[in-house]
Amino acid sequence: MIYGTTHPLWRAAAGPVWKEYTHHRFVEGVQNGTLPDACFLHYLRQDYVYLMHYAKAWALGVTKADTLEEMRACSATVEGLVNAEMILHVDVCASHGIDQQALFATEERSATMAYTRYVLATGHAGDFLDLMAALAPCVWGYGEIGARLLAQSHAPQYLAWIETYGGAQYQDICHEVGAMIDAAILRRLGPDPQSSPRWPGLCRIFRQASQLEVDFWAMGLQP
Amino acid sequence: MIYGTTHPLWRAAAGPVWKEYTHHRFVEGVQNGTLPDACFLHYLRQDYVYLMHYAKAWALGVTKADTLEEMRACSATVEGLVNAEMILHVDVCASHGIDQQALFATEERSATMAYTRYVLATGHAGDFLDLMAALAPCVWGYGEIGARLLAQSHAPQYLAWIETYGGAQYQDICHEVGAMIDAAILRRLGPDPQSSPRWPGLCRIFRQASQLEVDFWAMGLQP
Amino acid sequence: MIYGTTHPLWRAAAGPVWKEYTHHRFVEGVQNGTLPDACFLHYLRQDYVYLMHYAKAWALGVTKADTLEEMRACSATVEGLVNAEMILHVDVCASHGIDQQALFATEERSATMAYTRYVLATGHAGDFLDLMAALAPCVWGYGEIGARLLAQSHAPQYLAWIETYGGAQYQDICHEVGAMIDAAILRRLGPDPQSSPRWPGLCRIFRQASQLEVDFWAMGLQP
Amino acid sequence: MIYGTTHPLWRAAAGPVWKEYTHHRFVEGVQNGTLPDACFLHYLRQDYVYLMHYAKAWALGVTKADTLEEMRACSATVEGLVNAEMILHVDVCASHGIDQQALFATEERSATMAYTRYVLATGHAGDFLDLMAALAPCVWGYGEIGARLLAQSHAPQYLAWIETYGGAQYQDICHEVGAMIDAAILRRLGPDPQSSPRWPGLCRIFRQASQLEVDFWAMGLQP
Repeated sequence: MIYGTTHPLWRAAAGPVWKEYTHHRFVEGVQNGTLPDACFLHYLRQDYVYLMHYAKAWALGVTKADTLEEMRACSATVEGLVNAEMILHVDVCASHGIDQQALFATEERSATMAYTRYVLATGHAGDFLDLMAALAPCVWGYGEIGARLLAQSHAPQYLAWIETYGGAQYQDICHEVGAMIDAAILRRLGPDPQSSPRWPGLCRIFRQASQLEVDFWAMGLQP
Repeated sequence: MIYGTTHPLWRAAAGPVWKEYTHHRFVEGVQNGTLPDACFLHYLRQDYVYLMHYAKAWALGVTKADTLEEMRACSATVEGLVNAEMILHVDVCASHGIDQQALFATEERSATMAYTRYVLATGHAGDFLDLMAALAPCVWGYGEIGARLLAQSHAPQYLAWIETYGGAQYQDICHEVGAMIDAAILRRLGPDPQSSPRWPGLCRIFRQASQLEVDFWAMGLQP
Repeated sequence: MIYGTTHPLWRAAAGPVWKEYTHHRFVEGVQNGTLPDACFLHYLRQDYVYLMHYAKAWALGVTKADTLEEMRACSATVEGLVNAEMILHVDVCASHGIDQQALFATEERSATMAYTRYVLATGHAGDFLDLMAALAPCVWGYGEIGARLLAQSHAPQYLAWIETYGGAQYQDICHEVGAMIDAAILRRLGPDPQSSPRWPGLCRIFRQASQLEVDFWAMGLQP
Repeated sequence: MIYGTTHPLWRAAAGPVWKEYTHHRFVEGVQNGTLPDACFLHYLRQDYVYLMHYAKAWALGVTKADTLEEMRACSATVEGLVNAEMILHVDVCASHGIDQQALFATEERSATMAYTRYVLATGHAGDFLDLMAALAPCVWGYGEIGARLLAQSHAPQYLAWIETYGGAQYQDICHEVGAMIDAAILRRLGPDPQSSPRWPGLCRIFRQASQLEVDFWAMGLQP
């Protein structure tokens, strides 16, 4: 999958880290159904904590936007996260016997903390593009994983997860975020962003956030 | 109108400034129809610039929230602002011959800048409550003005404005924001917030933001 | 005076606003001694409030720096402000019968609020360069004014002020800030910054902050 | 050692985590000289990266301060960090054959990232007290460790480190930060801060940051 112009460039700049993230053993376990339920639920609970901070980081995007379109794109993402996506986690956890109170009381793991606070602190320190480079790996990586797993044969255990991220609605989001980031880069770095002195720094943030996704999967394997 | 427990306390703490704001000559001109069209349109254009920053400040609230409920309340307000309320301004301006391009190109007045940046900088420097004390005067003041003007006899010129802020939908928002702020205060300052050392500071922010509303009306009278 | 490469470019981009600021009637009154004492003291007190927020904005620069040099330059400026420069204001006010308690209790004027919060909010929303563009007009403008007034004939009334900003120590600071900003721009926008899409936005911030200096002088004339 | 009123309260609230931090195996290895050089140097390099962000977090404190005293205390700490303390690291590393370029190029470990970004993001989201609760464990913990190791018998290998943190100058800093935090709490939570609804949250931040110190030592053992 390619979600615009910037996506393949930043992905390439992340080097082997991108494949480690999108083809992680955790992901393969989701595909072939060998991932233990305990790992998946542990991951889901940490992901719930993650999404709370991830939504805050998208809200930070609203405060750093230059145009009304950027504000609207970030705001819509926050709404999607705090309503639809976080409620999905509540429901899936509930169906596995983890009630909302237990979910809310989840103790944050170190990998969750490192990733979420990195995104937030990077956003506070930098401008809209720095924040976008930190936010993008999660959006696009899950999009790639979902699309690939849905297209390949997959075990039934984690079908709902695969269908969520591989489905048309989430893929549309990936494309929309891609188009928004492309426009944001054009607006700030011009038509040849790779020649900007800012480019290596943005690639570094994207790679770092991708590495933190790798660490997050690894944490998922250790409930 | 009373929008919860905190609203009348902060309003009282603002002293005469609150009446200067909610009974400003600009407001009386809206009620009896004597406000020149040029003033109203000038105000609307500055208010459009204001709302852009005001939406950013509510988004900042998402990043400073302690609970999912606070996040959702702030996020819903951002959505309402960048979609419904700002589009209302676009439409009203359009109906008066100011197209979207002209509206977007509005040069920000000093009073607009002082108010918007005060709210944002106060939010960045402080916690969720400091930000709420800076955001509240706009929400509740317009609610009081709208309700009063709608209940009294009023000229037809600015009926749409009066019906917007006096109407049930906006009044509901005022009550919801009131309930959210009451809960936020209880959560952070306990059941007797007026005895907290934080209280005078919050009252000072509320009064300051109310004063900046007075200055904003005064600016509206000088197109 | 020219404080590096960026200074004359941004100054030119500010257009007539720059001269309105550096040759303001207030400044001429300082030079020829016709400025009433009451205006000068009123200005000093507001400037004290200003410096408190200005120091905070330079501290924000530390958090947004990319290199240790940038961190050190910003930190040294904060130290200079909260120690030397603010104490100068305390002393001058004291020598005019305004004790420290009265100085601290100064009520912030609207023009002070607009300027300080604009700088802080611009810094929070943007990156290091956005913040520098908002901080620079104060540093360089006072440098230009001080150097010019010291070189020309000037009345004795406000000699201490003229010698402070026209003196070698402050002029050195202007050059150091100039060199630091030149390096920061080279690092982020490359050797041809004027061709960067970011350039007009930085010029706009610099002009806006210069305009807020004009408003600040005007406020000084109205004690 | 006791550095004021708040220090022993927050330390107690951190429970066993505080002892895990201040009596970590890494620390015992520093005392008895069994810590491998490679571990110490690896730690020093990560600590250098840490200090860069830690200085930024203290600078954030300047922006969140309510009083000039708080501003000055934070600013002085930033100066101490970016000048004295970071240069100490440069010198010690140089004396072990790690030149400045190598030190600057140190790749940040996950534990370093988690800790530093947690402090920064906590500071941005909250008020001055939230930030102080995140900053304090490092100051006071090193103070306790330094004082204890200096008072007990200790091997010569890491004497300079022990003397730095156990010495009078650093111990003074611990007391000054203690007094500043005591005053900041009194100012915001009143004379009975433990009864404030804010108290558990501040203790949670202090404990969390102390846990991240434990993780940092553990990282130090894995060069």
